[in-house]
Amino acid sequence: MDERLEKQLAFALELDKEKSVFRRTHLSGPGRLENDAEHAWHMAIMAYLLREYADGEADIARVLIMCLIHDVVEIYAGDTYCYDAEGVKTQKAREEAAKEKIFALLPDDQRAELTAIIDEFEAGETLEARFAHAMDNMQPLLLINSNDGCDWKDNGISADKVYRRQGRTRLGSEKLFEATDAILRENIRKGNLYWEDPEGKEDKNV
Amino acid sequence: MDERLEKQLAFALELDKEKSVFRRTHLSGPGRLENDAEHAWHMAIMAYLLREYADGEADIARVLIMCLIHDVVEIYAGDTYCYDAEGVKTQKAREEAAKEKIFALLPDDQRAELTAIIDEFEAGETLEARFAHAMDNMQPLLLINSNDGCDWKDNGISADKVYRRQGRTRLGSEKLFEATDAILRENIRKGNLYWEDPEGKEDKNV
Repeated sequence: MDERLEKQLAFALELDKEKSVFRRTHLSGPGRLENDAEHAWHMAIMAYLLREYADGEADIARVLIMCLIHDVVEIYAGDTYCYDAEGVKTQKAREEAAKEKIFALLPDDQRAELTAIIDEFEAGETLEARFAHAMDNMQPLLLINSNDGCDWKDNGISADKVYRRQGRTRLGSEKLFEATDAILRENIRKGNLYWEDPEGKEDKNV
Repeated sequence: MDERLEKQLAFALELDKEKSVFRRTHLSGPGRLENDAEHAWHMAIMAYLLREYADGEADIARVLIMCLIHDVVEIYAGDTYCYDAEGVKTQKAREEAAKEKIFALLPDDQRAELTAIIDEFEAGETLEARFAHAMDNMQPLLLINSNDGCDWKDNGISADKVYRRQGRTRLGSEKLFEATDAILRENIRKGNLYWEDPEGKEDKNV
């Protein structure tokens, strides 16, 4: 086997470890916690199904591969819960080091290619990156909504925090943000989410 | 939320169940058994990484979505182990019924679209379907090879059977079949795979 293919297969085998990186979201049911590989798979299919709602003509192949690999650095850096303020402070440094390490397994051209895809996702400036981020928000939202907000309740997450994160869905799809907003309002009504400052909620631009 | 989007999100939530359909392949390590969602995610990334070896110019977006959804019928039909001769006899009927059921959740146009993608995969006539099948073979091969053939040994699978299945990788990529052949020969040499009829192995076209 030539060196190029050997490197590609070594990288492919290393990816297997992403199935053992667990998130803070439970499967619908509620079941066990979800892992990164399952989350990425689910996001990618949702991106394909919902692509008609992207605010522009997205390159769907690029959105799909972006969804599939967006968490690959967590093989070494671990999952950082988006509402963990302390973890988020060190996240960028940990993930940059992990990105260098994992993509070094690939031939140079593919190392550069996959690094660029991750960087594009992180920068969140292209339509493809914004739509992939919308899926990164909506996929766990579907699961948590199906479980009557158990992951928010278990972790003491407020509506304010959820809106700060989910609000970015609007950057990729106004329509999907409207759906997100409807789901969140219903969860607030049911008591699954609470406002940190109920008096000030009219100022929250929701 | 309008009816179209409601249907799409109901289908997306139903997909979550694929994370609880377990295969007969162990994660590398050996770890626990792999589930269908993880397998599909892994296959899709491999398709992207190895697309240069497809025997022709494959539409990579179509290969990716084909890899991602190819096992979705197993949510209702269950995983059929490819070396289970009895299970394989009823597989087609079970999977046809499951396909009708799951895609009925979608709006009509997407029901037709996803059904066509599954049917194309099953027919195995287009380059995209053949390359997706090559990934469906190579992905578990990487895991089993990394575990010194434990899944073959545990299930009493012969080299003859493995070659009958893995031989079809050649239909999508001659280069990747050569790599497969090298991996299988090494496993035979190490005693991880055996010939059913050692005397006749020269006739097996391997």
